[in-house]
Amino acid sequence: MAAWSERRLIEKIRQASKSQDVGLLKSIGDDCCEVVARNSFLISTDSLIDGIHFDRSFHPPKLLGRKTIAVNVSDIAAMGGNPRFVLLALCLPVDLEWDWISSWLDGVLEILDEFKCALIGGDTVKAKELAMTVTVLGEPLESGAIYRNTAGEGDTVWVSGPLGSAGIGLKILTHKKQYPDDTRFDLFEVLIGAHLDPKPQVALGLKLAESGLVTAMQDISDGIATDLAHICKASEVSAHIQADCLPFLPELPPAAALLNIDVEGLLLRSGEDYQLVFTVRRGEEAGFAKRFPGVVQIGKIHSGEGVFLQREDGTAEEITFQGYEH
Amino acid sequence: MAAWSERRLIEKIRQASKSQDVGLLKSIGDDCCEVVARNSFLISTDSLIDGIHFDRSFHPPKLLGRKTIAVNVSDIAAMGGNPRFVLLALCLPVDLEWDWISSWLDGVLEILDEFKCALIGGDTVKAKELAMTVTVLGEPLESGAIYRNTAGEGDTVWVSGPLGSAGIGLKILTHKKQYPDDTRFDLFEVLIGAHLDPKPQVALGLKLAESGLVTAMQDISDGIATDLAHICKASEVSAHIQADCLPFLPELPPAAALLNIDVEGLLLRSGEDYQLVFTVRRGEEAGFAKRFPGVVQIGKIHSGEGVFLQREDGTAEEITFQGYEH
Repeated sequence: MAAWSERRLIEKIRQASKSQDVGLLKSIGDDCCEVVARNSFLISTDSLIDGIHFDRSFHPPKLLGRKTIAVNVSDIAAMGGNPRFVLLALCLPVDLEWDWISSWLDGVLEILDEFKCALIGGDTVKAKELAMTVTVLGEPLESGAIYRNTAGEGDTVWVSGPLGSAGIGLKILTHKKQYPDDTRFDLFEVLIGAHLDPKPQVALGLKLAESGLVTAMQDISDGIATDLAHICKASEVSAHIQADCLPFLPELPPAAALLNIDVEGLLLRSGEDYQLVFTVRRGEEAGFAKRFPGVVQIGKIHSGEGVFLQREDGTAEEITFQGYEH
Repeated sequence: MAAWSERRLIEKIRQASKSQDVGLLKSIGDDCCEVVARNSFLISTDSLIDGIHFDRSFHPPKLLGRKTIAVNVSDIAAMGGNPRFVLLALCLPVDLEWDWISSWLDGVLEILDEFKCALIGGDTVKAKELAMTVTVLGEPLESGAIYRNTAGEGDTVWVSGPLGSAGIGLKILTHKKQYPDDTRFDLFEVLIGAHLDPKPQVALGLKLAESGLVTAMQDISDGIATDLAHICKASEVSAHIQADCLPFLPELPPAAALLNIDVEGLLLRSGEDYQLVFTVRRGEEAGFAKRFPGVVQIGKIHSGEGVFLQREDGTAEEITFQGYEH
């Protein structure tokens, strides 16, 4: 396998990068790129490290390229914004195969195209450890971005979709790495896909922002026990959520049973689902539910601090910041 | 020595980051930060890797923190812009000493303060290899940014200050690492300083952009043989520069002699001076020289392609893209 070369990689990036786009004054090929926003820019930067944030032994490079962008785009979705521009800073070992990095870049370009987002700049350096840092710029609607610190007492708490899928998907992949002949997990492709190729909730985030009914929002990257705690801490409120309201895919309980993993723990504490958790303004929940039939109410905001889980048997447990640590 | 902790580091960053600044709508503490530009944003991202871009054995952490920002701010200066906002993505080994990263961050914050630039976001991950990725956003003057692709035939070529200082400074530091008792280099602190603590030419870049006389510009990070070639390639012109016009500090020749290094090669091909190389509109050079007495004319733009060095003895040599490779 031939190793990558900087010349070849930059040539591929240059060909793929757009030179013309709304708001793009200068793309790759100068000291800086230059961009214009209609109102403001939302900006997020995140690094993924080989062996810590991904496992190349089972993560196909093209899907990893998609995920590298997806996890950053999810931060824009969490503010109710639209991703517009991306910069890449790549730290690449000299012996990295060209085929691998080329497929990775194909995945990056594919998902950028899906979100009509332009690659406008970056940096490529030789390193011992493979690491990718993505900076993404997005634009909120004219009505403004949705922050974390604006949830209020009496607001209801909602999530955009099933929890725990990516967490159990990673457990399945790790198990199958050790037991490649174990065919019992062949029916759980949807869970595996949730880990390998997560879908940032951009379209929904924009609609939620447009509704004017959402008071605070963030994406679920570290598990709802931690991510909802961020909203509560920033807003100086507490959240009480119902264990039996937490949504999950039908494939999750049988897969968890096979691996002997606790379902409730998965739903609360496993990371990387990239669903949205958000609050809806007090008294607006009935109208909101009609307008957004796909999302799920899971609890309510109260005074005080912390995140509490209430079970059907009447017990309650504090779960503040008990989520996944990268 | 105690190792760093993520909690302690993020707390220090959070305390130092500004929550209020012109154009800053949301700082650290949400999914994204949010910023507004008067006109456009210039954006650059660059990674520095331990052992490749810096040597911790002789680079004091505070100066390295300053340099980490300086090399990125220099990209903004090269477009005639003003640095405004910075995001950091840090890959830190678990055993990295707290004192080291804390001093590094002090350097970062010190230079950001000097440029009235705000730290507004970032990411911290555990890694095997120490790497820092900086994304900097700057604003050009209302009259617009200065690009690379706008040099014209008959324009004159200029540099903002002495060349080769950082290159020989690094050679001295590498020599002294091997021969710590060699006191012959004690007089060359200014050269060593050029490597350890480079000064991005922000104020000059803004004045050059304001003058309306500068047609193309870039910073000298890889040596003038390469950096001027970028301007020529982008503008589809050639540059002819005079060897005897290249400016250098008086300390450079004696230091080069001690280390048996060719002076001309240093001036043309050594990197990291972070001076500016730029072109002045045809026929305007006399007025320009009066207005900017500190900068040095080194050559002229012609048709054709490539960068050529002309010596006093009448010989000429093509030096296109012969600069420093990181």
